[in-house]
Formats: sequence, C-alpha cells, structure tokens
Amino acid sequence: MVKELREKSGAGMMECKKALTATGGDTDKAVAELRKAGLAAAQKKSSRTTKEGRVEAYIHGEGKIGVLVEVGVETDFVSRGEKFKEFCHDLALQVAASAPRWVRREDVPEAVIAQEREIYAGQAKGKPEQVVEKIVAGKLEKFFRETCLMEQPFVKDPERSIEQLRTDLVNVIRENVEVRRFVRFQLGETE
Amino acid sequence: MVKELREKSGAGMMECKKALTATGGDTDKAVAELRKAGLAAAQKKSSRTTKEGRVEAYIHGEGKIGVLVEVGVETDFVSRGEKFKEFCHDLALQVAASAPRWVRREDVPEAVIAQEREIYAGQAKGKPEQVVEKIVAGKLEKFFRETCLMEQPFVKDPERSIEQLRTDLVNVIRENVEVRRFVRFQLGETE
Repeated sequence: MVKELREKSGAGMMECKKALTATGGDTDKAVAELRKAGLAAAQKKSSRTTKEGRVEAYIHGEGKIGVLVEVGVETDFVSRGEKFKEFCHDLALQVAASAPRWVRREDVPEAVIAQEREIYAGQAKGKPEQVVEKIVAGKLEKFFRETCLMEQPFVKDPERSIEQLRTDLVNVIRENVEVRRFVRFQLGETE
Repeated sequence: MVKELREKSGAGMMECKKALTATGGDTDKAVAELRKAGLAAAQKKSSRTTKEGRVEAYIHGEGKIGVLVEVGVETDFVSRGEKFKEFCHDLALQVAASAPRWVRREDVPEAVIAQEREIYAGQAKGKPEQVVEKIVAGKLEKFFRETCLMEQPFVKDPERSIEQLRTDLVNVIRENVEVRRFVRFQLGETE
C-alpha cells in the first residue's frame, strides 16, 4: 500500500506511511492529503530564486510545429537531472499539442478578459443577474484552463494540470521550479 | 576548372562552362559573374509564394540557448530535401551564435534607426556636415550587418552573408526561399 501511494503521490516513504495511518489506510484520501501537504511545501519554495534551468526545444510533425520553453530551477546540478529534463520535455510537448497563449492567468491582458466577459454575458442574456454572473465566472475559468499553460490539463495525464505537474516536481527535486516563457511557431500561421 | 567553379558557385555545369569561356578562364571573375546571374535569377523567384517549409530548432550549450526559425519554400518535396534542411539548420546555428535582433533591415523600427543616427552623429560632432553624413551612413550599415540576420556574415563562412547563402540555395533548389521569423531564448535573460 505504501508502494502504491508512493507511485501515485511521488511523496517519500515516511510521509506515505504517516498519511496512510492518518487516513486509516484509505489510499485515495491519503493521496489527497499528500497533495495538500505537497502544495503547501511547494508554495513555501515559490519565492526562491531560480538562476539555473533549461531552454528546451521540441519539433513536431517533421518541422510543421516548433516550440521553445524556458524553465528555471535553483541549482545547476538539478537542472542536469533526469526528472527536471523530463518536465521540460513534457512542457514543450504540451505547448506543441495544446497551443496555450499565456503561461498563467496573470499574463492574460485585461482587454482580453473584458472581451471574453462581454461575449459570455451576451450568451447568457435574459437570465437573472446572479445567474449571468455565475455563468460568466464559470466560462472564464474554462477559458483560463484552455489558454493558460499552467492551468491546462497535462496531455499525457489529463487528471493533472501543468501546475500540479510542476508542484509534484518541486516536491521530488526539492527546489523551486519556474516556468518562465514559451514560444510556438506553426508553419505558415503568419502568412 | 569547371568542377572547381561548380563547387565555389553552386551553379550548373553548362553555366560554369559559359562563364569560364566569357571570362577567359578567370575563376574569380567567373564566380563573380555567376553570383550576379544567380542573384538576378533568385530575385525573379522572390515573388513566388512559399506555402511549405520548416520550423527548425537548435539548442546550444546543454540548454543555455534555444532557437526556433521558420523558413518558407514553395513545395513540400523541396522542404524535405537535404539542401533545404541544411540551410534551416545553419540558420538556427547562426541565430544562436550571433543573436540577431531582426530578420531584415526593413524590420528595424524607425525609432531605433533614429536613435542610432543620433549616437553616430554625436560621435562625429565638430566635423563637416558631409563627413558626418558619411560616417553616420557607414556606421548604420555596420549596425544592420550586426543586428539583421540576413545581413550578418555566416558564422561558418564569413565571406558570405546569410542573404548570399539564401540566394545560393535558391539557385540550387530552384525555388523561392523565405526566412520568415526567428526567436532566441537565452537562459535567465528575462530575470
């Protein structure tokens, strides 16, 4: 059971044992607990500076799509590790497949959000104001999930968002990880 | 002599024979003649649309620098050929090594050119107006050669500019080639 939990959560053996004891052997609950603890631990590291890292490239379809991503991490040693490299590669793959427009929702220009709000409100027209508000908020969340890299479901494992993938990595390598920027070229899109 | 000329100019056998006859066997002159003819032929093709092509990536220094370039060509067949792929790779290498800021001089913003002019004029202050004009024009040419990809000397063969490299390719593959855009990520530069 500890082994299964370790694979599911990426947490250490002692933590998994503790979580299993605390949840009376319920693996699903234990995973949720470990996720919460992992998130808290990752957030604590989020202010640490990431001077090292990697620029990763990915070419899809014989040169039809190209992607660059830049990911920061704290030490040169970790930047050369397999786990970190794998994350960078997965990230580039994600950008190629899902064509996000921004890294995080904070990067979406105010004007774009205002325009989206207007469209959603127009679609819900005639309904009570509170209902419209809820619909707009819900659709805006969906918009962020579709257009912001960190909020997109990971193409190789749609149960996890890219932010969750990042958090999991932080807890494995025990260093802050910062997705800095990406670019995606699709052949002919600028014609 | 024909063989040597073909290697130097990339032109066909018949063209090389003709050029050698016309220049009385002077290889250097013949190369110059062939270059001129090649340039004219390449310019004729410059209005042809380039719907096919490649996005090429290059990573330098274990992920410290990453480059994407997009190059257009007329047919899918040519886009898969070795000569074209080699050009795309050389271009990405060039961008990694020489960090151009724009593709061509037409892409440099007017404000940047105005600012450069001012700096150069300031440096030449006190000299006669005509002399200042000449100095400014000369330094501006140098600025374009340093910052515009197509005008940079090719890192693998500084005798040729990237534009010359493109022209030579056009004359070999007999299709228009368009360098569309590039991007260069250097680890940590946005911090």
